[in-house]
Amino acid sequence: MSTARNLQGTGASSGIAIGKAFVLPHWEWDVPENKKDVTDLAAEFERLYEGIRHSKQEITSIKQEISGYIGEQESNIFDAHLAILDDPVFMNEIQGIIQRQYKAAEVAVKEVIDKFVNMFDLLDDQYMKERALDIKDVGNRLLKHLIGTPDVKLPTDNKPFILVAKEVSPSQLVHLNPNHVLGIVTMAGGSTSHTAIMARALNIPLVLGLEGKLVEPIQTGDVLVIDGKAGIVLVNPPDAEIQRYSELRESEVRVLERLQSLATLPTVTTDGLRMSLFANIASLRDLEAALEGGAEGVGLFRTEFIYMDRETYPTEQEQYEIYCQAASLLEGKPLTIRTLDVGGDKQLEYANVPEEENPVLGFRSIRISLAQPHTFKTQLRAILRAGACGTVRVMFPMIQSVEQFRAAKRIFDEAKAELRAERQPYDEHMRVGMMVEVPAAAIVADLLASEVDFFSIGTNDLTQYILAADRLNEHVASLYDPFHPAVIRMIQTTVAAAQHAGIGVSVCGEMAGDPLALPIWLGLGVRELSMASGLMLPLKSELLKASAARSAAHWAELSKLKTSRDIREALERLGMGCGCAT
Amino acid sequence: MSTARNLQGTGASSGIAIGKAFVLPHWEWDVPENKKDVTDLAAEFERLYEGIRHSKQEITSIKQEISGYIGEQESNIFDAHLAILDDPVFMNEIQGIIQRQYKAAEVAVKEVIDKFVNMFDLLDDQYMKERALDIKDVGNRLLKHLIGTPDVKLPTDNKPFILVAKEVSPSQLVHLNPNHVLGIVTMAGGSTSHTAIMARALNIPLVLGLEGKLVEPIQTGDVLVIDGKAGIVLVNPPDAEIQRYSELRESEVRVLERLQSLATLPTVTTDGLRMSLFANIASLRDLEAALEGGAEGVGLFRTEFIYMDRETYPTEQEQYEIYCQAASLLEGKPLTIRTLDVGGDKQLEYANVPEEENPVLGFRSIRISLAQPHTFKTQLRAILRAGACGTVRVMFPMIQSVEQFRAAKRIFDEAKAELRAERQPYDEHMRVGMMVEVPAAAIVADLLASEVDFFSIGTNDLTQYILAADRLNEHVASLYDPFHPAVIRMIQTTVAAAQHAGIGVSVCGEMAGDPLALPIWLGLGVRELSMASGLMLPLKSELLKASAARSAAHWAELSKLKTSRDIREALERLGMGCGCAT
Repeated sequence: MSTARNLQGTGASSGIAIGKAFVLPHWEWDVPENKKDVTDLAAEFERLYEGIRHSKQEITSIKQEISGYIGEQESNIFDAHLAILDDPVFMNEIQGIIQRQYKAAEVAVKEVIDKFVNMFDLLDDQYMKERALDIKDVGNRLLKHLIGTPDVKLPTDNKPFILVAKEVSPSQLVHLNPNHVLGIVTMAGGSTSHTAIMARALNIPLVLGLEGKLVEPIQTGDVLVIDGKAGIVLVNPPDAEIQRYSELRESEVRVLERLQSLATLPTVTTDGLRMSLFANIASLRDLEAALEGGAEGVGLFRTEFIYMDRETYPTEQEQYEIYCQAASLLEGKPLTIRTLDVGGDKQLEYANVPEEENPVLGFRSIRISLAQPHTFKTQLRAILRAGACGTVRVMFPMIQSVEQFRAAKRIFDEAKAELRAERQPYDEHMRVGMMVEVPAAAIVADLLASEVDFFSIGTNDLTQYILAADRLNEHVASLYDPFHPAVIRMIQTTVAAAQHAGIGVSVCGEMAGDPLALPIWLGLGVRELSMASGLMLPLKSELLKASAARSAAHWAELSKLKTSRDIREALERLGMGCGCAT
Repeated sequence: MSTARNLQGTGASSGIAIGKAFVLPHWEWDVPENKKDVTDLAAEFERLYEGIRHSKQEITSIKQEISGYIGEQESNIFDAHLAILDDPVFMNEIQGIIQRQYKAAEVAVKEVIDKFVNMFDLLDDQYMKERALDIKDVGNRLLKHLIGTPDVKLPTDNKPFILVAKEVSPSQLVHLNPNHVLGIVTMAGGSTSHTAIMARALNIPLVLGLEGKLVEPIQTGDVLVIDGKAGIVLVNPPDAEIQRYSELRESEVRVLERLQSLATLPTVTTDGLRMSLFANIASLRDLEAALEGGAEGVGLFRTEFIYMDRETYPTEQEQYEIYCQAASLLEGKPLTIRTLDVGGDKQLEYANVPEEENPVLGFRSIRISLAQPHTFKTQLRAILRAGACGTVRVMFPMIQSVEQFRAAKRIFDEAKAELRAERQPYDEHMRVGMMVEVPAAAIVADLLASEVDFFSIGTNDLTQYILAADRLNEHVASLYDPFHPAVIRMIQTTVAAAQHAGIGVSVCGEMAGDPLALPIWLGLGVRELSMASGLMLPLKSELLKASAARSAAHWAELSKLKTSRDIREALERLGMGCGCAT
């Protein structure tokens, strides 16, 4: 057992874990450097391609397997891995070594991985270092298929442990049973790495970056205490420390329990304003979590999952059954179904979306639906029929003009007329809304408000278009800022147009769940917010302490601020008061 | 000589040409199908790579050579060709045939070209057919380097001719001396093809799509009359017809001469409003054309060309000399220099811009400049120094917030302080402006107006961001619409903010040169428009007939319209009146 000490790393996924260490052996692929040269180049290429095919199949099936218990964005990590296997630079390097030096495929793969990893590591850039980890992960998977080495073995005694490793790849992480892994400590890594994103999604405390901070290595069996928020790792700490952290952990649990106890309370500010907290869901499983969190409805049902991981469009009946089941589970609470929103960063293979230079500004979302009216109508028929199972509303994504909304509405009306003629049960009075996420829609919100039944403001896309900054691009991350005064103004314009026309308006982007933004909604008079289930109760806790009148009183001053820093600071001051000290 | 007849094709580049036909022999690469199989795969790959390298070099040098006399966008055609040579699908197919079937590189290339061309042709989609032509063009170039066949030979007697061919590739077109080619007739092709774009840029009349319309082929020596607007081809017409078309051609020339005669007139509406027509230029050569067209200044000097086609950043002195020369040529008329605007669809190899999913929403333009303050300051120093050579203004592209403008201004002020300390001549009072092209900038134009000296509205980017539609993506071409009411409103917001703050405002996107938009500028009170040189005189001709008062009177009604179709129709009605019938 190694000596007691306290280490400071980087907290990358919060939570406290206490338990015994299991140290993952640092494990390099055993590629014989002097492996006999190949003579049959064509056969060696075939082996390489075979390995790539198997690796891709494996990645695809892991992705499918885990997409149920981690979010959509997290499972996109595996798309990045698939992309590496399709990367011509990476592949040409490997092929080049085989064909010019007559080396075996595994030798070539190992050389290329090492080269890229070293190159990226040298760049001294966190982003590149993390891409190096991705390449290593994919490369190791490919090596596994070429050499046939088995997956890493974990303890089989079924006792939970804290995993300690030089680095953990997302692939390794998904093979862990979350119930057995109390926490993770790694030497390498940055908090924006795919591994960190996944640890947060799986709710596993994670401390990174202990490299160089260990005089003596952690050993399997050492008792560890880790604090994934503060980045602290205690090795074999005295009992008093263990006791202290146990209490901390318990108080965290109590906080969670207290939050859970809010689920059934009415959502009202201190001055009596009633708000509705709705959930964003992407599957029926999400809906269960949402209802446990006290969701008063679904503000955004992303229907993409029904279309993903299959080879043809889902039938009307397949869709109807899912929509109807969701509406039934909600027992009369509203279910807002967004029609298919693919393209951009979410592609359907069978939708024949062309390769584009800038997919986020391309053929996507309602644009695809309007170009494929038959499949669009199929979805609308399924939604209309589900209207007979509960309270269903429909909304169109990415609407940018009055003409475009009318075109979508026309197909909706056709679907209605068909169902009427067929004497099928459906909701004749279903409310039809649209997302406000293209800047044009916010700018002409007054023109649109007279045509639609409700607006739902998608702050994520709206922000990225208003600021011309791809929100998934780390190089412009600092420019993507929902608190930019231009974004706030466009939200205000949209809300004002809705109020003037007397139609509903809700917010369903990430901003809806951000406590910092709460005074904005209260100040503007937005009554319906929709967010990921996990954000609902923390926000409700803030909301129950807030005063709508105070936010409204400060709105005029807030809306005059020139920079997002000023706006953030003003919101922090407003939030801090919690409505208690006006 | 073939019999006289009249043929109807597709007019793809307007103008009338009369002259003798020169028929380009339809020419296929002579690749022996049974060429001996290769044994040394590595050597064959090397041959292929060598061919690709040479093809790329050749394309790059053609691009450079012609970039002087065709526009920037047209020369991007060659980037598409370079991209094909980098396309892993195309290359993998070729490599696959070599390595699996032991075929020679040229045989593999020919097979793959034929496969793709046939496949794309089969799709019965104009876009794909034109991409097939690109692949064929690139493939033929590659074959030339593998087999060594010479370029197509043209008549050497120096007499101008009308080129007749099955199809003409952009590569062939750039090798033609525009003075020798009166016009072009092709059997294949569509009006959006790269060949058509280039013919328009080179001002060569072009009729496409005679395939299947010729009972008897056109022969070298036949007398042809072609009308590139109407798509008419007359083969050996009677003298009366030749006479009629000669007169038509002369009247066209007279129209051009009449336009040219406007160059020196003052730019005033019928009711006495003085406007300034400025030019957008991308090189000193453009500036000469602009001055011939009567430009009253340069509203947009794109400095990218100074940075392109080289391996390192240009020095301060190199830049200074170009800016100073431009300022001197303008003899006191304003020269508005835009700082480096790369990224998006224009990449600098040495700027280390990362590969991005959505480059148009990525690390580009002022974002790069602010991240590389040293090279940015070098450019600003050169611009400040050029201020001593004439009237120079500087403007920053893609500004999205007050903070960002201040950050750029700070570096500008540092550059000033340095020059002052060094006692170098520069313009201490240079005006500093910004492009309004990110929606955020238009939305908070009032906040920015108090910080800057002038706005220049970049309608192209502004439109694409407001509508979330990539303007270079054909799949969303119909959604990219500068007459969308949201775009018009944002222009109005920007102009009003500038007027309120008493700063200058001009428009420099494509919309500035569109006669349809003229009533908008007159109605809003925009006094400065900047456009491609070729558009200045046609616009001036409209402007001289227009009434500012009439546009202003109709503005309120125009700004209430709900759809871009309504707006376009209203503008057409306004324009038709030409101010004559109020």
